[in-house]
Parts: sequence; C-alpha cells; structure tokens
Amino acid sequence: KTKPNNLSLRCSVSIEKEVPETERPFTFLRDSDEPSHSSVRSRFETMIRSVQDSVCEAIESVEKGPKFKEDVWSRPGGGGGISRVLQDGNVFEKAGVNVSVVYGVMPPEAYRAAKGGSASDQKPGPVPFFAAGVSSVLHPKNPFAPTLHFNYRYFETDAPKDVPGAPRQWWFGGGTDFTPAYIFEEDVKHFHSIQKQACDKFDPSFYPRFKKWCDDYFYIKHRDERRGLGGIFFDDLNDYDQEMLLSFATECANSVVPAYIPIVEKRKDTEFTEQHKAWQQLRRGRYVEFNLVYDRGTTFGLKTGGRIESILVSLPLSARWEYDHKPEEGTEEWKLLDACINPKEWI
Amino acid sequence: KTKPNNLSLRCSVSIEKEVPETERPFTFLRDSDEPSHSSVRSRFETMIRSVQDSVCEAIESVEKGPKFKEDVWSRPGGGGGISRVLQDGNVFEKAGVNVSVVYGVMPPEAYRAAKGGSASDQKPGPVPFFAAGVSSVLHPKNPFAPTLHFNYRYFETDAPKDVPGAPRQWWFGGGTDFTPAYIFEEDVKHFHSIQKQACDKFDPSFYPRFKKWCDDYFYIKHRDERRGLGGIFFDDLNDYDQEMLLSFATECANSVVPAYIPIVEKRKDTEFTEQHKAWQQLRRGRYVEFNLVYDRGTTFGLKTGGRIESILVSLPLSARWEYDHKPEEGTEEWKLLDACINPKEWI
Repeated sequence: KTKPNNLSLRCSVSIEKEVPETERPFTFLRDSDEPSHSSVRSRFETMIRSVQDSVCEAIESVEKGPKFKEDVWSRPGGGGGISRVLQDGNVFEKAGVNVSVVYGVMPPEAYRAAKGGSASDQKPGPVPFFAAGVSSVLHPKNPFAPTLHFNYRYFETDAPKDVPGAPRQWWFGGGTDFTPAYIFEEDVKHFHSIQKQACDKFDPSFYPRFKKWCDDYFYIKHRDERRGLGGIFFDDLNDYDQEMLLSFATECANSVVPAYIPIVEKRKDTEFTEQHKAWQQLRRGRYVEFNLVYDRGTTFGLKTGGRIESILVSLPLSARWEYDHKPEEGTEEWKLLDACINPKEWI
Repeated sequence: KTKPNNLSLRCSVSIEKEVPETERPFTFLRDSDEPSHSSVRSRFETMIRSVQDSVCEAIESVEKGPKFKEDVWSRPGGGGGISRVLQDGNVFEKAGVNVSVVYGVMPPEAYRAAKGGSASDQKPGPVPFFAAGVSSVLHPKNPFAPTLHFNYRYFETDAPKDVPGAPRQWWFGGGTDFTPAYIFEEDVKHFHSIQKQACDKFDPSFYPRFKKWCDDYFYIKHRDERRGLGGIFFDDLNDYDQEMLLSFATECANSVVPAYIPIVEKRKDTEFTEQHKAWQQLRRGRYVEFNLVYDRGTTFGLKTGGRIESILVSLPLSARWEYDHKPEEGTEEWKLLDACINPKEWI
C-alpha cells in the first residue's frame, strides 16, 4: 500500500529558511488553522508536543541531572518546530526529540502522482500541504543499552477552494524501531510485545504487517542487512478511519516510554570492555549509513532545506568504520549481525 | 563540460558479484583485450597499478613498520581489483588505496544520453563498456596532518561491431583534494602548487578550471560548505587529444606523493589536545556526509553492486556528530570552517 511516486513528490518540494525563536508558541499552526481546535491538524500537534514532553521527562529521570537543551524555530510563512537535545549525559551519548510543523506547496504533478486519482478531478495549480511529526533518536553510552528511534507524522493537503466539499487528502506514517549492539532476548521480546499490544488494540493485522514493513524499510541494501532488530513501521496510511488512525498513532507514540525506558534502566550500568564499545561504534556506523543513504525523512530533509541540525541529530555522537570487519561465527557480535541479516519473529 | 545525463547513465548499470582471488593477476583485462599492450585500456591499467604501488610504498615508509593488507578480487565476466588497506597504523588511522577494472553493459538510452550525438548513428542494443581507476583516501591520526583523497579513472565503450571504423567513446576523470582539520598556510600552498605544476605542463587553463571544478564538486549542499580545501577535479573529459589526457592523468597521479607525503612527515608528531582531536572527528563527520550523500563514485558503487568494503574504505575509522556545533569566531577551527564556506585562491 505504499504510493510508488511518493519519493518524487517529496523531492520536488522545498521550504523556507527557519528563524530562531526565543519562546515556544502555543501552537505552530497558522492563524487560519487555529480556530478549529478539534481539527486533526490541531489535535495531532497537541499529541506530538505532549509525547515530546513525556519522552524528555522520562529520559531526564534516567539521566539524574543532565537536562535537554531546547531550540525553538519558526518559518515566516507558518509552521516551525522544537528541537530538544541532551548530549554527553550520564546515560545517553545523544538523545534528540524533535517536533515540527511544516506548511508547504507541492507541484500539481506530485499531488496527482501521490493521490493516484484520475487527472480530471485535479486542480491545475500548486497544492498547499501541511505536515507535522515527532521524531526521536536515543543513543545510550553503554553498548548493552539499545538505540531507539521513533517517528509519528501526519500529512494533509488543503481542501480545494474551487471544488466545494471536495475532500482533503491525508496520510499517517511512523514507527518505532529498536537497534541494540547486543541481543538480550528478554529485551527484544519486551520491546516487540509492547508494539504488538499497541497494534492489537486497533487491528490484529497491524502488528504482523507493520513488523514486516519495518524489517523491509530499515534495510541497508548495499550491506544486505537491517540496521537493527525492527519494530513497527507504516507509511502513507489512509485506508482506515481517520479518527482510528489518529488514535493508533497516539497509542504507538505513548508506547515509547514503557517499551524502552525499562530496558535502558536495566542495561545502563552493565560493565563492558573496549571490544564491546568498538562493536557498538561499528553498528553506529551502519546507523549513519542507513540514515544518510536510505532514510526517506533524512534524505528528504537534506534536499528540501529542512533545519539541518534537527535532521542530523539522528546521527550518533560517534561512529566507526573498520575495513572488512567480520565477527567470528558463534560470538555475540555474530548473533546480532545474523539477526540483522535474517529478521526473526521475536514473539 | 559535464554531461548532464551522466548520472542517469551511472545509475542504470549493474555489475556481477566479485569473487576473492589468492594472487594478483598480471592484468585484469579480458583475454580479448590483452594482446594490445599499447591500447589505452592496457596502459591505463599499468599506470594505476604502478601508482598504487608507489603510494603504498610511500605510506609504509612513513609508517615505519605497519604494512598494507591486500585483497585481490575478480568478476567472472572479466575485470577485478586490488584493495590495499592499512588500518590503525603509527601515523594513519586508515589508508586505503584501490585499483579496479570493470567490464559492464549500459542500456542504449544511457549511452545515447551520455554521448549527446544524433540518434541516427546509434546501435540499437546494450552498449558494452570498460572502466578502470585508482582511488585512495588517506586519514592520518594526528589532527594537524590532513586527509588526502585522489582518484583517476578512464572510461571507454566498445567499438561498435556493426559500424566498421566507428570510434569508441572514451572519457577521463579524476582529481586530488586536500582535507585538513587545521590550516597551515604553507601546507595548503605546497599542495596546491604541486597540483598547478602538474596542470601547467599540459594547459594553462587546467589549474584554474579544475581548481574551481573541485570547489564545486566537493560541496556539502545541506551545510553550504565544502568538505575541505580543494585541489583539482575533472570529469568526463574527452575534448583534448587522448594521449595528452592519458599523460595528464598520469602526471596528476604521480604528483600525489610529492604533494602530500612531505606534509604528513612535517605534522605527524605535532602535539595536540583532546579538543584538537574532537574537531578533527567532527570534520570527519562532514567527510562521511559528503561521501554517503553526494560523492558520485560512492553512491554509484553502492547502487550498482560494487565491492562494498572497497567503496566504503573511504570512510574514516571514526567520526563524530555534535548537535549544533559552532566554532567561536577567530579561532583556528573557525578559520578552517570559513575557508570551507568561502573557497580561497591559495597560490
């Protein structure tokens, strides 16, 4: 159910330069959007900002001292974002949790391709759109504590002004995925169980479908391996009730803290050797490869003029590339690599 | 003089999986090519293998002990390569020097687009091609010793069999560029002077033209900065005498050792602090960004199924990404960044 031309849609869009703000605004929505507090735009913004708060609070409570640094920015034509980063903490090497709201305009061909409808029902001019999302990557220091990424986003075009009553196009996308350097089966099972629980509240087909989609998406083609042990992923989802999908995205985002924080608490102080650290650094090199070469959000952001520091906060504080490194068969490093090459069912 | 459709040409090609070899063959050319020792293919292969030998010898004599590890590989349909890597040496964090010879087939549309000729003189079928090159990235440990990259390559299509006497299409490409973390003006001047000397032996327009091409090519668009302090770069060059360009590429490749090794000798033992090292690691992060997002050789190699470990040997042993790092105005770090944002004339 992916839309084949979505990538070209994403590449043909570009956005204004952002400007720093001294305070968080009540909303990043345009004045023209604001009155409708019950709109999906408005409720989605409220949701992602609340998720940003709760994830940052949970991370700070693990850190016991170090705090997130916040940057707020806006764009003259509407939209903006809040970037929060905690770098070189007690537990996390780098933790970034960002929300952003973007207003843009896409060429009509891109809209037509993405929508997949007939040419007759199209407006001739450029199509204004709205996109909002929360995005986060959490890289702990301890090589036995896993990296986590999650992102939930909502996309909507403006209602056509010249066709009264014509519907807006909208999609939901997102996912949560788990990238340890070492496998603790109980951790992987815990993580996947929480994802499945969130999915099962809405549709029994969601977990198997979105688990596979995640394995397929976080794939480093040139290595023929995944960057980690998966989770759930979905994109361009609009073939369910809109309210249901808003609740589903909310449920998934709210599952991040219970799925992840207990694992970090359990592993953050485990003793490790230089070899364990070097292997974590090599896996972080793979993370960089995936993000810079394949990740749609990153490559889209780099091409369209998004806020670079917010986009690249997903990169680890440090990473490593050794020539032709191959873990010895049967070692813990080999087991991780094997599970990245041959995705498993964890629950 | 770039060919606008060259990128699509590069992306529509894919090559066979390589197999390891236990010995270096006398040549990677196909038997059908081999009798003509005086062909440009054959002389170019001889040149790049000799450059690989002399650069590796020069690096090993700086290293005083550590030696390159060699991997030889071939492809069943012809071609192959020699990868040499010295990792975690006394002076170099990672030094890779590779040669490769590739036989492939490109779709006729790609050939037509690249050639830019009229449709009437085209063969209908896929077009066999030959490509060979030497490619190297040298990352020293000391943050005051610069990273160097060079690559020289030759590309040729087969002569059309059905049009007797019709010419082969051919191009030369390459360059040598200099990426320090700190500026020593005498080093940058020395490096650029040697590039200019090599160019001036052939055409007085070469250095200014290829210096600018280099500044334009090694550009990290999303940062609006170059990865380093430039050098020379040219691509798809065929509008000069073929013998002259073969000599020119040879001269450039032979200039690598005198342009670079004296600088490494001078800087390899300079004392440095943790701050100097952290800045070098940040600049290496930029190197990774350029190579994975923009470098044509890397992105082409990853897409077409080239030997991954040879392609990614260009990545540093370690790299670093700090959120929103900005050097203070007037510092040595700021001066380097300024020169990457505003390319200078060094000589």
